[in-house]
Amino acid sequence: MIIAALASAPGKCGVSVIRISGENCISLLLNFFTPKNKKMIKKMEYSKLYFGQFHDSNEVIDEIMISFFKNGVSYTGEESAEITCHGSPLIIRKILQTLYTSNKVREAQPGEFTQKRFMNGKIDLVQAEAVIDLINSESDSAYESSKEQMSGSLSTELLKIKDMLVNLLSHLELELDFAEEDLDFMTKDEIDDKFMIALNVISKFITSFNSGKIYREGIKVALVGKVNAGKSSLMNCLLNTERVIVTEIEGTTRDIIEEKIEVNGIMLRIFDTAGFRITEDLVEKEGIKRSFKAIEDADLILHILDAETADENTINEYSHLKNKTIRVFNKIDKVKNKPALTEEDAVISCKTAQGISELKNQIVEKVLKDDITYQSSHITNLRHYNILRETYSNLELARESLVDGQNNEVIILDVRNALDRLGEITGETTGLDIINNIFGSFCIGK
Amino acid sequence: MIIAALASAPGKCGVSVIRISGENCISLLLNFFTPKNKKMIKKMEYSKLYFGQFHDSNEVIDEIMISFFKNGVSYTGEESAEITCHGSPLIIRKILQTLYTSNKVREAQPGEFTQKRFMNGKIDLVQAEAVIDLINSESDSAYESSKEQMSGSLSTELLKIKDMLVNLLSHLELELDFAEEDLDFMTKDEIDDKFMIALNVISKFITSFNSGKIYREGIKVALVGKVNAGKSSLMNCLLNTERVIVTEIEGTTRDIIEEKIEVNGIMLRIFDTAGFRITEDLVEKEGIKRSFKAIEDADLILHILDAETADENTINEYSHLKNKTIRVFNKIDKVKNKPALTEEDAVISCKTAQGISELKNQIVEKVLKDDITYQSSHITNLRHYNILRETYSNLELARESLVDGQNNEVIILDVRNALDRLGEITGETTGLDIINNIFGSFCIGK
Repeated sequence: MIIAALASAPGKCGVSVIRISGENCISLLLNFFTPKNKKMIKKMEYSKLYFGQFHDSNEVIDEIMISFFKNGVSYTGEESAEITCHGSPLIIRKILQTLYTSNKVREAQPGEFTQKRFMNGKIDLVQAEAVIDLINSESDSAYESSKEQMSGSLSTELLKIKDMLVNLLSHLELELDFAEEDLDFMTKDEIDDKFMIALNVISKFITSFNSGKIYREGIKVALVGKVNAGKSSLMNCLLNTERVIVTEIEGTTRDIIEEKIEVNGIMLRIFDTAGFRITEDLVEKEGIKRSFKAIEDADLILHILDAETADENTINEYSHLKNKTIRVFNKIDKVKNKPALTEEDAVISCKTAQGISELKNQIVEKVLKDDITYQSSHITNLRHYNILRETYSNLELARESLVDGQNNEVIILDVRNALDRLGEITGETTGLDIINNIFGSFCIGK
Repeated sequence: MIIAALASAPGKCGVSVIRISGENCISLLLNFFTPKNKKMIKKMEYSKLYFGQFHDSNEVIDEIMISFFKNGVSYTGEESAEITCHGSPLIIRKILQTLYTSNKVREAQPGEFTQKRFMNGKIDLVQAEAVIDLINSESDSAYESSKEQMSGSLSTELLKIKDMLVNLLSHLELELDFAEEDLDFMTKDEIDDKFMIALNVISKFITSFNSGKIYREGIKVALVGKVNAGKSSLMNCLLNTERVIVTEIEGTTRDIIEEKIEVNGIMLRIFDTAGFRITEDLVEKEGIKRSFKAIEDADLILHILDAETADENTINEYSHLKNKTIRVFNKIDKVKNKPALTEEDAVISCKTAQGISELKNQIVEKVLKDDITYQSSHITNLRHYNILRETYSNLELARESLVDGQNNEVIILDVRNALDRLGEITGETTGLDIINNIFGSFCIGK
């Protein structure tokens, strides 16, 4: 069955793109397309743009551009085509309906074009997952990391471990075959070394997940403090001094406002919380409850203090959350003595913008800690993270068995499990339900 | 200056299209594009798709498809190009920023690509305006009418009148030149006949505007009546029995809900109004005020009545708006006698769906009256309507002068004015401010 769907974003606009893929889709499309230069129809070429009319059996639907892609070189790997039509939802509906009513075309499932690309061996699963991450990326770091993974770099690094393990496995199996002859192809220490190398690499991947997640999803920053401390000014200050304000989302709650800015390529998702006070008003109570939730969920709390007036109680209000709190003394243009108590406190003036860029760096540093430089070996995907943790357990078990002097058969079993797990990341041993689940989270038309 | 903009709809999706147009844009783009098959770069052809990498001076931004269009045959008429990239807002921003920072490219104004198409004489103004109407069309009739106008049919009909008037003008001018010789090239009656023909055609265009507007914008239908009359049931009934529910918009007001359905190719925009009752609640008062406004604005009122219980007062509640009201007696499955009072009343049952399709036809007929069949000569554009009314006045003045036996010079002046007006529709005599205004209402990238 041929599949078709709108591949560009829905909405009224200049042009929209419809993708079609499947065996014989070109000859089918030629029933509905008449090129402006009718002589063309005899000698249409692949990867060329043809202008003409898309029509059903009755009438012309739109003037379009169409191009055909050869089986093997197309995105999906199958014979396919792309239609560029006017950006009208009505026209798109008419074109797709014309195709569907031919009974040879059905609507593509979400991600089905990329799924075909994967199924036809043009990319592995990590690369396919990177496609959707790339589309969803909202910061430079998220974008770089998905571009990196799309190019296959993560797969390459995983392949190295796999090769080593496969090598190890064949050694272990060989030993098993010749067990009675008591030959030692590799010493126990050598095998242990290999395990340690694999465990180390995988462990690095696993610990990279936290910062990887930050690269992809950004840092949740909660702004807290009394209203006159300059919380709102800081919000504006952070936003205005940035060249690109990505978006402003008014939360589903009535009180928490989320703003996004990019600092050093990392997305900061700044939540402005409602001020706290004792209240009987139900709506306000709910708002305060949500503020507490925001503080709990935050990767980082910016505790804004008025450098002029903050008393000790106020200053220490969030000291129980010290690990994820930066105290920000505002209005230092007004005070003579530096109010900061520790090296980790920030000292700023929203009025003069003093200390703002330092604060931004402090935010990123505090969350990423010593993990600041971007590495291509970052894991950003929860699925990869979980699989790698399982792989790690499998290899740990294998190593324990080795150290305990157990039979090779026991060790082999766990190494095989570890290899199966690794194959699930790149898609070789991944179950169909998981694959469907992955592509199901794509947009339609991708 | 080269212009560039996103031409497909904004948003995360499979693919996005960026349009670029302007002299030497191809050689500029080749600084940022490296085809996968590097040998290609020497022999790139027009209207062909090339796969490769878009990069700035530092790094690869995305894998894209690019195609180049030859000056003269492109959409704008200028040398131009189209980039298909991943549907990521971040990538689109990066690509456009790379182009802008070359200092040879600026962001395209709304409609600027189509404006160039117009300026380069590839379409007239009516056709350009039809492009945006086509994109915005939400019903079959709106779509057909804009497609028709885009093909140039309205322009052709206007051209016939123009030709006739130009012909008339040259006769009148010839007479003027030979005035002393007292030659009558055309009799006064013959000239009057011509005026009458032109006036008649233009008058038809003008009166077609009302139904034309309906074709384009749909019919505003207000549902009124007591809640238990089955108002909501009718809304659901109208929506569910239709194959295509175009959209559901919750109004900016908290109380008026707008739903759109298509009946016989005409868009019905159904407004469900709040029930009326005397209230002191401010919000509810505001809601009721808005309901009155909706009734006032409506092209048609459906007054839903419970056939079982409606008393005479209720039945006649909207008789002061008789011209635009259909009384709809609901729940006729429950009553024995047909409750309708006149031929124009509708009799339905939301429960059994009896009478629903008749009601739909009645709605369309009531609003379009005897103007039901779609004519290609419909005027749907307010600008065209206003200009044609001016043209009509000019020609009326000219004819009056003729009948009054005034000097040809006076007549000529008004005919010339009429011709100028007509030229404003197709764009020959349109002021730049008006042209900018028209294209300014387009989307960016069109």
